[in-house]
Amino acid sequence: MTASTGISLTTLAQQTQAAARQLAVQPTERRNDAIAKIADALESHAAEILAANAADCEAAKSDGIASALYARLKLDEAKLKAAIVGVRDVGKLADPIGAVQIHRELDEGLILKRISCPLGVLGVIFEARPDAVMQISSLAIKSGNGVILKGGKEAIRSCEALVKAIQEGLSQAGIDPSVVQLLTTREETLELLKLDQYVDLIIPRGSNSFVKFVQDNTRIPVLGHADGICHLYVDRAADIPKAIQIAVDSKTQYPAACNAIETLLVDQAIASEFLLEAAPAFQAKNVELRGDERTRDILNIAAATEADWSTEYSDLILAIKIVDSTEDAIAHINTYGSKHTEAIATEDAKTAQYFLDRVDAAGVYHNCSTRFADGFRYGFGAEVGISTQKMPPRGPVGLEGLVTYKYQLVGNGQIAATYSGANAKPFTHRDL
Amino acid sequence: MTASTGISLTTLAQQTQAAARQLAVQPTERRNDAIAKIADALESHAAEILAANAADCEAAKSDGIASALYARLKLDEAKLKAAIVGVRDVGKLADPIGAVQIHRELDEGLILKRISCPLGVLGVIFEARPDAVMQISSLAIKSGNGVILKGGKEAIRSCEALVKAIQEGLSQAGIDPSVVQLLTTREETLELLKLDQYVDLIIPRGSNSFVKFVQDNTRIPVLGHADGICHLYVDRAADIPKAIQIAVDSKTQYPAACNAIETLLVDQAIASEFLLEAAPAFQAKNVELRGDERTRDILNIAAATEADWSTEYSDLILAIKIVDSTEDAIAHINTYGSKHTEAIATEDAKTAQYFLDRVDAAGVYHNCSTRFADGFRYGFGAEVGISTQKMPPRGPVGLEGLVTYKYQLVGNGQIAATYSGANAKPFTHRDL
Repeated sequence: MTASTGISLTTLAQQTQAAARQLAVQPTERRNDAIAKIADALESHAAEILAANAADCEAAKSDGIASALYARLKLDEAKLKAAIVGVRDVGKLADPIGAVQIHRELDEGLILKRISCPLGVLGVIFEARPDAVMQISSLAIKSGNGVILKGGKEAIRSCEALVKAIQEGLSQAGIDPSVVQLLTTREETLELLKLDQYVDLIIPRGSNSFVKFVQDNTRIPVLGHADGICHLYVDRAADIPKAIQIAVDSKTQYPAACNAIETLLVDQAIASEFLLEAAPAFQAKNVELRGDERTRDILNIAAATEADWSTEYSDLILAIKIVDSTEDAIAHINTYGSKHTEAIATEDAKTAQYFLDRVDAAGVYHNCSTRFADGFRYGFGAEVGISTQKMPPRGPVGLEGLVTYKYQLVGNGQIAATYSGANAKPFTHRDL
Repeated sequence: MTASTGISLTTLAQQTQAAARQLAVQPTERRNDAIAKIADALESHAAEILAANAADCEAAKSDGIASALYARLKLDEAKLKAAIVGVRDVGKLADPIGAVQIHRELDEGLILKRISCPLGVLGVIFEARPDAVMQISSLAIKSGNGVILKGGKEAIRSCEALVKAIQEGLSQAGIDPSVVQLLTTREETLELLKLDQYVDLIIPRGSNSFVKFVQDNTRIPVLGHADGICHLYVDRAADIPKAIQIAVDSKTQYPAACNAIETLLVDQAIASEFLLEAAPAFQAKNVELRGDERTRDILNIAAATEADWSTEYSDLILAIKIVDSTEDAIAHINTYGSKHTEAIATEDAKTAQYFLDRVDAAGVYHNCSTRFADGFRYGFGAEVGISTQKMPPRGPVGLEGLVTYKYQLVGNGQIAATYSGANAKPFTHRDL
């Protein structure tokens, strides 16, 4: 039973699936209208939403919540306004549904189309970030999907107030409000992961260990990544000031981000010159440096152990290793990296291309910060998550990650027997 | 330890991964040359291959192998020749690697490209079909992937002779032969499914229960499908002779295929007229008919039980159900179908579109046989498998299913701080 509705989670998921199937066939304008009405409803219920959030914040404070978590939980008027602007922006994105990806004549009068369509129902599990409710719900509606949300327990009141407003907006647009549903208990998370009959994609947003737990406990495809262990390799042909600028930005611009670097690899030929200039730049930004033996011959810093190479610090800590060659740097990255984003600083175009071709990661960068690995920065207009799996969607994923496709074949009585056997009629296979 | 080489499976997979990484950066011509040299080697070793197969066949016969299995196992000169032609044809396909899918300026001098690249290492588990070894190996080389093959135990000698020839061809082309490897024992299958660090995609080719077993026992993505429960819905506005022709072809053209229909749904308004004409056509093809109660009011046939609606007969058996409306037909399909291929026969374009939009399947067909659901028939030049999952790749999958992509970002020192905060520089996001 779900805490809020008293119905079983399976029933709730069935309702969402049924509502999502209705939404899936609504034209672009209907879905955009629903997003506009959701934004309106959020605006008109702003006072209740802020009050609910204030209650959440008060409870969290008295529970002694960590300050970083509190900052994410807190929803003030400005943050709510910005989130509602974000909802309206989703309405302006190009429709990801109905795109004809393949249009081909198989034979005269037998026409194949591959058309993008919604996935179905998304299961989104996130921490105490009420703004995620608004972002994810609008992206789901835009892409014609239903969504079952499970927020952190600290944000229960906020989430309930937000979903209530969102459902009101949906009703006003004539869309079945059960297309967006909210779960509130931890037990429901486990149950949700088992509903592979009704839920088509799980998007976990939380700590590395939580994402790993989700990946290990569901048959439903998971969009996301656990670790983000990214590297910058400073090649012997690097421009030193440029490399330092990139290294400092990649480490410090937002150290908690998954696309921040954890390890700096430096070619031995440039190590001494580079490190003596780079160290003060890092220290000016309060970065704690840890080095391998050869690095410590140059810099007076703490020792990096084997564990450092596979640790995501998510903090102002940087491990440094001196390598003998680009080949060595690539081998280190392909061993310890999490296939997220990997960069090289060099003025040698050939070395750069060698690195970009051989490093196995969702993003391979030359002479720029790893911090650019982001759906908005890539121009996707949204980011649903960043995937470090090999199979697409890989890297930062925009709305494209919330749709699939189906093949539509239209004929006038064609049968396979005509195209088989000794007198088989040939296919024309003509792209239209 | 692997039976054939005496090294551990992990070591073998590491070797394949290393060899695959080398192959991945070879230009199109090198990979095509390797395929040509594989075909040459298969030709020059034809006698040994046929002798090995003859030994397999003899052993299988004395073990009392089923005749259908024996037919698949048997490799005569004509079948081997055809398979080698197939290998050469793979060489002629367009290169799936290196395609630029996105080319975008994020800002002046900061250029993003999304480029297709190989997945890495494929794990392919198949039954006693020696020809699969040649097809899969050539597709893997074409797409720059390594492949670890595991064939049915009945085909051991054939597989070993084939892989020996393939590896010789690779060596002659200067490609590390360990890019194609063969496993021979059942225990290795289980071990292979655990090697998610080295194997990027599992392609199981076998019975439904085997595919299900694979899906349930690996964290590696699986390309394939278990059940193929497909339907034809005969709408009230169907052209009866056309609908009968499509129904008979969909059921009988190759009843063991996954894209053959198992259930026929008929609108009550046309049921009597259609079924009385259709029954003799099915009976002429020796199709056993089973019907729901209303069908049995019209035809004197056996009763279909609840289990029939979710059974893949893979045989000349057809379940028939009368429905009240297109809506009912869609509901039945979305409940019992396996999301493979679903067809409607109707002369009403609006009803057809309603059906195509609302049926949730990889393929939705109007007025043509479900038997067209096939990578070759779609013009992909190859078929790696048919996926019934929601996430892409979905439906018949060609070479496209063996590649992924990476994002390549090239700048000249750009950092994220420039594009953040109060004086953030805007991105240009201009497609090139």
